[in-house]
Amino acid sequence: MSYPKPLEELIAQFETLPGIGRRTAERLALFLLQVPEAEALRFAETVRAARLGTKLCSNCWNLGESDPCRICADPQRDRNLLCVVEEPKDVESIEKAEIYRGLYHVLQGALNPAHGSKPEQLTIDALVARVKKTKPAEVILATDPDFEGDGTALLVSQALKPTGVRLTRLARGAPPGTSLVYLNRAILTEALEGRRPL
Amino acid sequence: MSYPKPLEELIAQFETLPGIGRRTAERLALFLLQVPEAEALRFAETVRAARLGTKLCSNCWNLGESDPCRICADPQRDRNLLCVVEEPKDVESIEKAEIYRGLYHVLQGALNPAHGSKPEQLTIDALVARVKKTKPAEVILATDPDFEGDGTALLVSQALKPTGVRLTRLARGAPPGTSLVYLNRAILTEALEGRRPL
Repeated sequence: MSYPKPLEELIAQFETLPGIGRRTAERLALFLLQVPEAEALRFAETVRAARLGTKLCSNCWNLGESDPCRICADPQRDRNLLCVVEEPKDVESIEKAEIYRGLYHVLQGALNPAHGSKPEQLTIDALVARVKKTKPAEVILATDPDFEGDGTALLVSQALKPTGVRLTRLARGAPPGTSLVYLNRAILTEALEGRRPL
Repeated sequence: MSYPKPLEELIAQFETLPGIGRRTAERLALFLLQVPEAEALRFAETVRAARLGTKLCSNCWNLGESDPCRICADPQRDRNLLCVVEEPKDVESIEKAEIYRGLYHVLQGALNPAHGSKPEQLTIDALVARVKKTKPAEVILATDPDFEGDGTALLVSQALKPTGVRLTRLARGAPPGTSLVYLNRAILTEALEGRRPL
């Protein structure tokens, strides 16, 4: 009402971001109007530069500065291993751990019936075509160990079955470094059912 | 680590915003890289336009598109009433209610010893000069009814005392439209202590 129009427009823009409601949008917008002008302009320029300076890799669908991305272009990576994840941030997590030297495939989401994510919005067709063409020895399904991730892994495994590729899923159970008293029933159930001989 | 540099820079920019941690910053930045390019560029341009298109009113310190702002320049407003608030969003709240036709003074914050906000960061000197010059009949202290707001009101009232202007503070007690069972001890205490004869 009494806010100047450019500020109202900025609040509306912040409201388009996921998880940002009207009150938070107001707080963020007002913050940017109260910091020194150079800082606010740097914020705007960084958004612009990031959007123009990154692209989706047409091979693995991860975000990168080039296409193919750095990982796909790296001759040191093991082309026999393909790790299928939901989002770019999953690639980031695994890369940070420095425990994996294969390639990735980013699905760009997970099945989410409640929020309307549909199979055709995921990059499953591209994955099937890639597996047929590059014939990796193994595809590791590394979607999240939750309801949506499990459903997505099932869908991907069905789509890949005709290719005959070896399919694996990340191990699940009690997370190392914790105490049993902190684990809920679902975790304990998986840990028990998946027990292995010593 | 594996995020492209422009994306890392965008995450860092989001982290400078109040209340935004690393995980939220990642989510917002990745969102802007996955929407259509035109939407992300519009977001950037809106930040820029809002920052360049708004200014602080040198009279009341509210955010506006012009200086003096629309409210200060409006000949219909009652120049005998001056309502002192903490933030531009407080002006917005009162204006939306359409119950007040006086002018405002925005302190640009509240005293906050815990977070280091100091009296000299508030626009109290400008308020004193303004009251001396324009001689309003009444100054309404409408800072928040909380610890910081009460302290700020006390500080402002001390600064204004030498001018002899009439000072009032917003009434406080039980908020209308609720049930007593929802009110906490602090609210009930103020409601009881401030009780009035019928």
